[in-house]
Amino acid sequence: MSETLKRLSAVIESRKLANGGDPDKSYVARLFQKGDDAILKKIGEEATETVLAAKDVRAGGDKSKLLYECADLWFHSMVMLAHFDLKPQDVLDELARREGISGIEEKASRG
Amino acid sequence: MSETLKRLSAVIESRKLANGGDPDKSYVARLFQKGDDAILKKIGEEATETVLAAKDVRAGGDKSKLLYECADLWFHSMVMLAHFDLKPQDVLDELARREGISGIEEKASRG
Amino acid sequence: MSETLKRLSAVIESRKLANGGDPDKSYVARLFQKGDDAILKKIGEEATETVLAAKDVRAGGDKSKLLYECADLWFHSMVMLAHFDLKPQDVLDELARREGISGIEEKASRG
Amino acid sequence: MSETLKRLSAVIESRKLANGGDPDKSYVARLFQKGDDAILKKIGEEATETVLAAKDVRAGGDKSKLLYECADLWFHSMVMLAHFDLKPQDVLDELARREGISGIEEKASRG
Repeated sequence: MSETLKRLSAVIESRKLANGGDPDKSYVARLFQKGDDAILKKIGEEATETVLAAKDVRAGGDKSKLLYECADLWFHSMVMLAHFDLKPQDVLDELARREGISGIEEKASRG
Repeated sequence: MSETLKRLSAVIESRKLANGGDPDKSYVARLFQKGDDAILKKIGEEATETVLAAKDVRAGGDKSKLLYECADLWFHSMVMLAHFDLKPQDVLDELARREGISGIEEKASRG
Repeated sequence: MSETLKRLSAVIESRKLANGGDPDKSYVARLFQKGDDAILKKIGEEATETVLAAKDVRAGGDKSKLLYECADLWFHSMVMLAHFDLKPQDVLDELARREGISGIEEKASRG
Repeated sequence: MSETLKRLSAVIESRKLANGGDPDKSYVARLFQKGDDAILKKIGEEATETVLAAKDVRAGGDKSKLLYECADLWFHSMVMLAHFDLKPQDVLDELARREGISGIEEKASRG
């Protein structure tokens, strides 16, 4: 796995309340404390912000905004995975399973 | 970068019409051909499907469905990045920039 | 209630399988047959399409597209309401409850 | 149009800065002041919250939460319409145009 994803995943895990995460000091610990819906709302929010930033790029805006929002979307996806006791590596394994020509074309057949 | 993301990114790049991608044979080439809104709609769709799958896990459902939808969300994010001539590594770089305690807490202050 | 919402609501109700709706002939009956997630995915999809259309208006596009997508969003909200045995009038009642200066400002205090 | 939608639409219009809306006192005036993306983010957020509430109903939760979130979605749709100088009646007209059996089945042919 990417070193960045590995380190970020470790930091996120350390923010779980059971691992000593402190909601008063940490944004991620606060999300874990709020629970499922607070975390899932962020998935919806960040997806919308990504879409808005992409449209802004087409209207002449800055690509760094799009990167920033996509990073937010991936980051909150990782918080969600941790919340459900899953790992980014599990997602990469699923992507690897599909990878390669046959894997990607499989999507096409799913329509 | 993760080997999986690297290989997947290369496959996605090869599906661009300019790189010989064939919309009749490839789902990704078809998305590139349809353009911005078709790709951005997928971000919204996959985010919603991820949220639905997560709620199903809480109701006793299978975690593999959540992994599958999260993989779909990351996959279509990568198609979007490629469509805007960005790389997954750019997103990882942005995440690395924020990484570490200070980086994550920075989010908290953004509230 | 608006005559349009009333008539539309009656048509949607008539598409329920229990009321004789035929999935082979009716899009709405098909949604009812597919069930919760198919209907809820449409809420996410139509919200994203509304956002895309609004950004297009700002980039010089046609307002009729935005109206069309907003109508799709409201329409699928009504299908969802019917699926959960609720009525548009229930939503209007909730809006009326909040209506007036005090009602709207109440939102502000919710942050 | 429904009396509720009519009154609510009038209140929203009165919150436009050009009509004397005061961002320090009114949530809606504040949204108008923040502009396009703040308003469109709310569409994405409220759609996600509606989806979450609907899943909660299926897990045994309260229907009043779903009504509340759907009202929020319609309310912010109306703020968006006003922001783009459109009226709820325009959306109702579009829905009326589609209404009736033929109108709804037209959706089916769109797939």
